[in-house]
Amino acid sequence: MKALVYNGPGKFALETRPTPVLQGPGDAVVKISKTTICGTDLHILKGDVPSCEPGRILGHEGVGVIHEVGEGVSTLKAGDHVLVSCISSCGQCEYCRRGMYSHCKTGGWILGNRIDGTQAEYVRTPHAQTSLYRIPDGLDEAALVMLSDILPTGFECGVLNGKVEPGSTVAIVGSGPIGLAALLTAQFYSPAQIIMIDMDANRLECAKRFGATACIDPRAGDAVDAVMKLTDGVGVDCAMEAVGVPSTFELCQQIVAPGGVIANIGVHGVPASLFLDKLWDRNVSITTRLVDTVSTPMLLKTVCAGRIDPNRLITHRFAFDDMAKAYETFSQAASTHALKVIVEV
Amino acid sequence: MKALVYNGPGKFALETRPTPVLQGPGDAVVKISKTTICGTDLHILKGDVPSCEPGRILGHEGVGVIHEVGEGVSTLKAGDHVLVSCISSCGQCEYCRRGMYSHCKTGGWILGNRIDGTQAEYVRTPHAQTSLYRIPDGLDEAALVMLSDILPTGFECGVLNGKVEPGSTVAIVGSGPIGLAALLTAQFYSPAQIIMIDMDANRLECAKRFGATACIDPRAGDAVDAVMKLTDGVGVDCAMEAVGVPSTFELCQQIVAPGGVIANIGVHGVPASLFLDKLWDRNVSITTRLVDTVSTPMLLKTVCAGRIDPNRLITHRFAFDDMAKAYETFSQAASTHALKVIVEV
Repeated sequence: MKALVYNGPGKFALETRPTPVLQGPGDAVVKISKTTICGTDLHILKGDVPSCEPGRILGHEGVGVIHEVGEGVSTLKAGDHVLVSCISSCGQCEYCRRGMYSHCKTGGWILGNRIDGTQAEYVRTPHAQTSLYRIPDGLDEAALVMLSDILPTGFECGVLNGKVEPGSTVAIVGSGPIGLAALLTAQFYSPAQIIMIDMDANRLECAKRFGATACIDPRAGDAVDAVMKLTDGVGVDCAMEAVGVPSTFELCQQIVAPGGVIANIGVHGVPASLFLDKLWDRNVSITTRLVDTVSTPMLLKTVCAGRIDPNRLITHRFAFDDMAKAYETFSQAASTHALKVIVEV
Repeated sequence: MKALVYNGPGKFALETRPTPVLQGPGDAVVKISKTTICGTDLHILKGDVPSCEPGRILGHEGVGVIHEVGEGVSTLKAGDHVLVSCISSCGQCEYCRRGMYSHCKTGGWILGNRIDGTQAEYVRTPHAQTSLYRIPDGLDEAALVMLSDILPTGFECGVLNGKVEPGSTVAIVGSGPIGLAALLTAQFYSPAQIIMIDMDANRLECAKRFGATACIDPRAGDAVDAVMKLTDGVGVDCAMEAVGVPSTFELCQQIVAPGGVIANIGVHGVPASLFLDKLWDRNVSITTRLVDTVSTPMLLKTVCAGRIDPNRLITHRFAFDDMAKAYETFSQAASTHALKVIVEV
């Protein structure tokens, strides 16, 4: 089969690899029909993710059809149309029983990281019964790819951890795909304001179309002042960090209201300053989370019901043979205006 | 009347001041019978608290008898025996209605800070109906002084924010009065382990007597290793910071388990490093809080029922004329072994 292989920092190639086979009774092999590229794949290519070794097939998002299942799999069968979750989980370990699937002792984020992933014609998925989701008929496949990672990540790490509720004020720092996923799913809870902050005019324009009530470009004036002006000088109930660098996390600390939450979504490579001298008496919470995908079934229902349209996140489509171009387009989003790309396998 | 007056950094004196009078219909004037000194008073004396201006009578803890009440006060009357809460709250503003009394728009921590406090023969307390608590007969007054601040602070900022629950593992970094108050109140919830970490052998000895299941002195070996050894290499469900310096807050980040909480109790004067590169995917929460004293009635019931004995925190007693000596004893705890002092007014 063809597969996109990581060959060490900065290097990847479409290669011919053996089609995966079942390795354990709980496995499935899925024939991928659509996949996508994640910001995390770019981190891997930069050499930032040491757990992902050269030779690994990348990708942790996708939809497809089950090719075969192990003898321990009774709830899924060959021919089933499924969504592949970015998180594999046994459903049985201490962390899984607490709903912390991301920390599953034999799973977590392993696809396209510790084991071969979904940017391939076939993928082997361990813990198939608790890591694949059967797709209802008639839904748009491309939209569902957004349920593998980006929508549950924005929703769980941002919206649920951020305790977004009717009437609350929300700021999302970072209007990239993940910030926009948080913006779309925050609206389930009817907040009073959703303020998007980004330095990319095109992405702020998207945010406006997706439902942001205000957009702030920090290059146009002090972002803290702008947020305070919009919130009667109090700050926001929920500040989501959706970039992954110290300055944006530090901005969140300056705009959170007493009693508010800073919900971190970004992947960080270095420490940030925590202004405890300012925050120790502010009754704030700061949360971090690797998406657990506990909300995948819930989000699937919102898509079925038309409460959310994940297609809005998709800007580009490529054939699998054009993976190199897909990576280039996705990684140069400032000029290509790419949000999420769909790759047809 | 006599009162302990702050006269600028490093300076305080027992002075003769006018007895306070009612200023508003919701006020009470309380004749203080017992008060104490808080670590925050020492911060003021260092000049760390700019809101507290020279000339201020210090103190935000105490018990006494109501001398007179304003015409708007119907639930309390002269002669009532009351506990003075460190937090004054109107009970009506947006923050009070959310139970965030510490951020009351016309209250919060004002006693001995923005208005004259309890280290005096009399104190005027605004918002009397929602800031004083009638004391049941027969209870030990000195023990109740511990309910003005230290017990609700340890309980709310540490135990409640830290989500201590049956079977959980807890580490408390800092075995001073506030860490010990958290230790005492954490035991309401039957955690499996409470690990105290401090560099003062006497305070660790106290912690052991108060119910700590393990004590760690970081000078005797790596504290992180020691905590990991006690927790099967996982870390603790709840790490409480009860010192207020960057190094102890940073230690908390190293010992918290995936899915755990870092509950800050300490008063911080400078920022700390937040290891987001390590924590972004660990599903942790970090909380800060100025005590709201929402738990004061609950704690009062635990004292009445004998579920907790606040007297254990009291090591020294002084007459009001010996306030200078009381401050000296409290501030030099390493040599005096002082925890909380009681001052008889």
